[in-house]
Amino acid sequence: MIKIIILGAGNVGTHLFRNLNNSKKTKVVQWYNRSLDSINKYKKEVAVTNQIMDLKEADVYLLALSDDVIPEMAKQLKHLNGIIAHTAGCVPMSILNESNNYGVFYPLQTFSKNRDTDFKNIPICLEASNESCYQTLFKLASTLGNNINKVNSEQRLGLHTAAVFVNNFTNHLYQLGDAICQEYNISFSLLKPLIKETAAKIETMTPKDAQTGPALRNDKNTLQKHQDQLFNPDIKNLYLYLTESIQKNNE
Amino acid sequence: MIKIIILGAGNVGTHLFRNLNNSKKTKVVQWYNRSLDSINKYKKEVAVTNQIMDLKEADVYLLALSDDVIPEMAKQLKHLNGIIAHTAGCVPMSILNESNNYGVFYPLQTFSKNRDTDFKNIPICLEASNESCYQTLFKLASTLGNNINKVNSEQRLGLHTAAVFVNNFTNHLYQLGDAICQEYNISFSLLKPLIKETAAKIETMTPKDAQTGPALRNDKNTLQKHQDQLFNPDIKNLYLYLTESIQKNNE
Repeated sequence: MIKIIILGAGNVGTHLFRNLNNSKKTKVVQWYNRSLDSINKYKKEVAVTNQIMDLKEADVYLLALSDDVIPEMAKQLKHLNGIIAHTAGCVPMSILNESNNYGVFYPLQTFSKNRDTDFKNIPICLEASNESCYQTLFKLASTLGNNINKVNSEQRLGLHTAAVFVNNFTNHLYQLGDAICQEYNISFSLLKPLIKETAAKIETMTPKDAQTGPALRNDKNTLQKHQDQLFNPDIKNLYLYLTESIQKNNE
Repeated sequence: MIKIIILGAGNVGTHLFRNLNNSKKTKVVQWYNRSLDSINKYKKEVAVTNQIMDLKEADVYLLALSDDVIPEMAKQLKHLNGIIAHTAGCVPMSILNESNNYGVFYPLQTFSKNRDTDFKNIPICLEASNESCYQTLFKLASTLGNNINKVNSEQRLGLHTAAVFVNNFTNHLYQLGDAICQEYNISFSLLKPLIKETAAKIETMTPKDAQTGPALRNDKNTLQKHQDQLFNPDIKNLYLYLTESIQKNNE
């Protein structure tokens, strides 16, 4: 039984609590948040606190905090015996190096509070200050799922950057698609099967092999027709920029 | 029983043949292609030809041809009695107006020859020169699926433009994500659950509500860290451009 204390009650902290508290192999012994408001409703299930000095003993302290809060929190936790691990994509592990045992426990997924997250297939990226610490984090990750990966701080930052392209930027393209549909009085739902298939294709093909469309074919006639449809100059510029990028990267 | 002749053996033509030939309510009576090479292997299942003058009688002639070939083909088919319908997103219906009965039968999906396509959920966008012609095309579409939509030529072109954003451009972002992973020696497969979830989210949320990330939060620290990771100046510029577009469209 791995004893865990979660610090933070944002999307990641909340999803970690829900999943770790339902496992037989882990016990969340305490949940810390700066404000008690967001965790008070869980106090029948877990001890809650907003005081660092009241933190109990645990095997792992999971810091599900925003990036800029982690360094200061790390300083306040250095007296603790358990492993101090943050869950951030962009923060190097070394920020925690005043503790004896530390590491990173980074689940690579987009979390929304109102949407259940099944950790089973979520890649969990681990890094640790020593082998025994890594083993404990690995055991902890195994209680959630099977997709566990050793990823160092530099790789994790690269991964986080790549994730912005396939998640934040991709979702923004969905938003622009929605905006174009609204302009032409068409339902965005017409695009949903295409969005699903576009994502499904790369399960079995590389993105390079899956690329299609007028930019790739350099079909000037169609490219021009599309540009003529785009009345918003910013969206049109983005169209030109992405078209150029497709052509440059697929010569 | 609707009698159909398919013209063209590209991705759309091939998928239409496979699906329409397996239906009890339709019969593909002939398949035309300029070159017989790609359709000869089907000649046990269907009559094949590469001669316009040998075209049989049918209720619907489906022109699954590349955009620039459609106008010339339309001229050669104007003597036929059946409905002449093209399957292109970017070609106005009026290009077929020398025929008596004509229309558009546009399935909005990305087709790959090596990947089966289930038409059941694919939106089929219809337009027709008259009501009886629309009814026939509607009946034909109903044999494939339930997602049938009346879409005029201008809307269809808008839809095709929006589709480029959510399909071609999105896939290109996957490709750039893959390129970043390779640079950091990380497997692209780590991003696949995130890609799947990003697409799944908009089934129940608007893209605007689903937007997250450092661009939206204007988290300057993380934005800078990401830019420092991007060694390819074109990818870095695209990062800046998409970040700016997220901020402009979500003020």
